[in-house]
Amino acid sequence: MQSLQEKASEWSGVAASDAFAIDETNLFESLGGLQPFIDLSTNFYTRVYEDEEEWFRSIFANSKKEDAIRNQYEFFVQRMGGPPLFSQRRGHPALIGRHRPFPVTHQAAERWLHHMQQALDSTASIDPDSKTKMMNFFRHTAYFLVAGNEMTRQCQGVPRQHATDKPSA
Amino acid sequence: MQSLQEKASEWSGVAASDAFAIDETNLFESLGGLQPFIDLSTNFYTRVYEDEEEWFRSIFANSKKEDAIRNQYEFFVQRMGGPPLFSQRRGHPALIGRHRPFPVTHQAAERWLHHMQQALDSTASIDPDSKTKMMNFFRHTAYFLVAGNEMTRQCQGVPRQHATDKPSA
Repeated sequence: MQSLQEKASEWSGVAASDAFAIDETNLFESLGGLQPFIDLSTNFYTRVYEDEEEWFRSIFANSKKEDAIRNQYEFFVQRMGGPPLFSQRRGHPALIGRHRPFPVTHQAAERWLHHMQQALDSTASIDPDSKTKMMNFFRHTAYFLVAGNEMTRQCQGVPRQHATDKPSA
Repeated sequence: MQSLQEKASEWSGVAASDAFAIDETNLFESLGGLQPFIDLSTNFYTRVYEDEEEWFRSIFANSKKEDAIRNQYEFFVQRMGGPPLFSQRRGHPALIGRHRPFPVTHQAAERWLHHMQQALDSTASIDPDSKTKMMNFFRHTAYFLVAGNEMTRQCQGVPRQHATDKPSA
């Protein structure tokens, strides 16, 4: 059986070694601290909460934009070499478990990545080399969560919905 | 609704600030590298795979002991300030998702913690202060996973089994 990591690499087209190249340097330090991460997550969720694609925008409808921004940048800061802000406040990242309420399909992953690429493009406080590393990490992780989503939606052995199905909207 | 973190604190009796005191110092460096973590996980799984309680031992029956040891110490090393060995090989820790196949009940958490306390007691390469910090982290995390287990076993809104039920063995 393919592992989550193998599925993530195959579906994203990003090798694990490229995804986790974020660990080769301390990005939090090289980017100069918190602000670039706040900038990125603010740019990202500003796009998401205004997405013209209602099926994607609606995934986030039960969260406040400010909370979504904070949850995201605190996780990124913690994962990329900064202080463990996320765990201090919310505990383990537990990425698959925490994404369980959301339909993390291939299509949703691509829409997420589209907005993240645009958000990175418009974040001047992050240098191009770091952007490349971060995008590889994001792409691999998005498909890791698609794989996790398929796994957790299997109820008593029967898949509830194949994760590549198009949303009904 | 109580968060995973709040449930973990209430059920374990360990405040989040005590659980994540492991982040106040770099335990990997202060313990002198990999060996103490290998010692601990070897001691732990040697006990687990020989547990006289069959219901607990059987939870691990589908994994090889050497694999269980490596998965565990690579995660501990990564989480406690060392190199990201776990993610390089297996991806995100995704603690709740990866524990989904296992019945992480209150009783299983206590049995796990019992063996871990004994394993720590018999690991001379870890100093007493670090043992206390690690045990607080383990206790909180065990109940974080009990909370995660309850969450992920809810199939289409109906709990499959209440996680405090005793195992049938």
